Amino acid sequence: MSNRAIILASRPHGEPQRENFKLVQLPMPQAKQGQVVLQTVWLSLDPYMRGLMDNRESYVSGVKLGEPMEGGNVGRVVESKQPYITVGDYVLSYGGWQEYTVSDGRRVRKLDPDDAPLSTALGVLGMPGMTAYTGLLKIGRPEAGETIVVAAAAGPVGSLVGQIGKRIGCRVVGIAGTKEKCDYITSELGFDAALGHRDPNLQQALSEACPKGVDVYFENVGGRVWQAVFPLLNKFARVPVCGLISQYSAVGTTPGPDRLPELMDSVLSKRLSIQGFIIDDYGPEVAEEFRRDVGEWLKKGQVKYKENIVEGLEHAPEAFMGMLKGRNFGKTLVRVAI
Amino acid sequence: MSNRAIILASRPHGEPQRENFKLVQLPMPQAKQGQVVLQTVWLSLDPYMRGLMDNRESYVSGVKLGEPMEGGNVGRVVESKQPYITVGDYVLSYGGWQEYTVSDGRRVRKLDPDDAPLSTALGVLGMPGMTAYTGLLKIGRPEAGETIVVAAAAGPVGSLVGQIGKRIGCRVVGIAGTKEKCDYITSELGFDAALGHRDPNLQQALSEACPKGVDVYFENVGGRVWQAVFPLLNKFARVPVCGLISQYSAVGTTPGPDRLPELMDSVLSKRLSIQGFIIDDYGPEVAEEFRRDVGEWLKKGQVKYKENIVEGLEHAPEAFMGMLKGRNFGKTLVRVAI
Repeated sequence: MSNRAIILASRPHGEPQRENFKLVQLPMPQAKQGQVVLQTVWLSLDPYMRGLMDNRESYVSGVKLGEPMEGGNVGRVVESKQPYITVGDYVLSYGGWQEYTVSDGRRVRKLDPDDAPLSTALGVLGMPGMTAYTGLLKIGRPEAGETIVVAAAAGPVGSLVGQIGKRIGCRVVGIAGTKEKCDYITSELGFDAALGHRDPNLQQALSEACPKGVDVYFENVGGRVWQAVFPLLNKFARVPVCGLISQYSAVGTTPGPDRLPELMDSVLSKRLSIQGFIIDDYGPEVAEEFRRDVGEWLKKGQVKYKENIVEGLEHAPEAFMGMLKGRNFGKTLVRVAI
Repeated sequence: MSNRAIILASRPHGEPQRENFKLVQLPMPQAKQGQVVLQTVWLSLDPYMRGLMDNRESYVSGVKLGEPMEGGNVGRVVESKQPYITVGDYVLSYGGWQEYTVSDGRRVRKLDPDDAPLSTALGVLGMPGMTAYTGLLKIGRPEAGETIVVAAAAGPVGSLVGQIGKRIGCRVVGIAGTKEKCDYITSELGFDAALGHRDPNLQQALSEACPKGVDVYFENVGGRVWQAVFPLLNKFARVPVCGLISQYSAVGTTPGPDRLPELMDSVLSKRLSIQGFIIDDYGPEVAEEFRRDVGEWLKKGQVKYKENIVEGLEHAPEAFMGMLKGRNFGKTLVRVAI
């Protein structure tokens, strides 16, 4: 049996390149007492992983050079020295970009394939879904009739933000990278409006799409979209910040003018509330509430999701680099084994 | 009887100048049914008034050219056509920089001179005090053992922020403009450390004064202090923003680099919470809670305050301009009548 892995071969300067990753063979892991060996079935690719490639403090710690890239995955248990985990079980775990991983069994969660497709544990029922749910409901706190703007709106976070916003009775405006994605979020997901983030008149288009201003801006991209939304924020607007994909690969300082004084001025005059979060900030109660609610909506067909499936671990680097550029359409997953 | 007033003669470009103000004689106001005429005893001068001089949307609306500057004041009722207000009563009201004002009697609050010195209704028991109280307790939410940093620490807001922080059991570091102010906040008010904001090594000094980082930064100045505090913020730090005195008179854009991407990056990686507020955002329950608590602390001598009293309405412009430059020491008040 082989245990192929994608390691971090070098750190990127700016956008990640193919040579930053290397496919290698690792020894087959074996379980010690209390451990389990997992065969990776699904590997999740997420924007935060760009931070794993850097050697700086962030909300994720960097991967060491020569070590496998890390990520959430769904695995099948092939060896178990844990009493409550059985060979053949499917579990959600956090491990490496590799075919087999060993886990101490405490940080895994058993999945029931009859409950929902296994891959959803990495998407709509997993970290991205919970990011949308907690950020919108715990920080954004939208009320019926308010306007929500979300970027990367066809992605796994943004698409759920918008759908929850519609359930609440909000006006939801999504920003996405292609016409296909814009069509999807309006016709399939029920968003009220969709705008292309490359639209040279984004500011004007957004202003027209939000005639009553913006009450919640769910920030997951930063950069140009934030600039366009910012002047439209209403008094007491809330800005949950869960990601800044547009600036993850920024190099050096950003040319002026310095927009910080203007931001702080608006924070004060509009009494904005800007708050960063990641789902680990929330305890198991919120996680259970999220899985119960979204799980139920999913079963009733009231929530939709889209997956962008890539076949084979060896294609993970390209899929990851493509995702950072918005080339994915839906939650990016690598099928490592069947 | 004369009714002298200070009107806004022209709008400042940058820092206010003497010629932006003009002392004029206004007709003596008379009360119609339901109104009261007040003789201004104390006029409050506060940093937010810089915004009144501009013609742009902010959390205060600008004063019209030729109209009296506005402000909170304590007045003595000299004529009343309100059943529940008697000639001779003292009231807190919002009016003009003038000797006599007319009020509809609904926006005034009676004051008891035996309860606390009348001037405190404009300071420690008034808007600045409530700004400190609500911003720190409702947004900053410090816990014992945490570190609070506050700028303009010898001023009416900052001095109360620090004293409440000490009551809670926090480490409190104040930043002020002179050695005299720094000595006052440490030896009189019990701050743990005081730093001069003109200190060329402010960043380093602040880092040493906050060995466990900063959990709450009470933002009321912006600019250089914010830059120095920002890298020291701990994960989950809270930043209530009630003022930005250092940038009120800024003209045009600020030269680069653009620090906004870095700020947003920290918001995310440290899960910061930045929230603007003014006291009008809070209802009467919070106002009563504030007056009850701080009133009690004041009576017991557990809270101290300092006043910077200027004699005569004609000196209000100089006093105001001086306050914007930090030349006051304590809450700036104009004694308009005895």
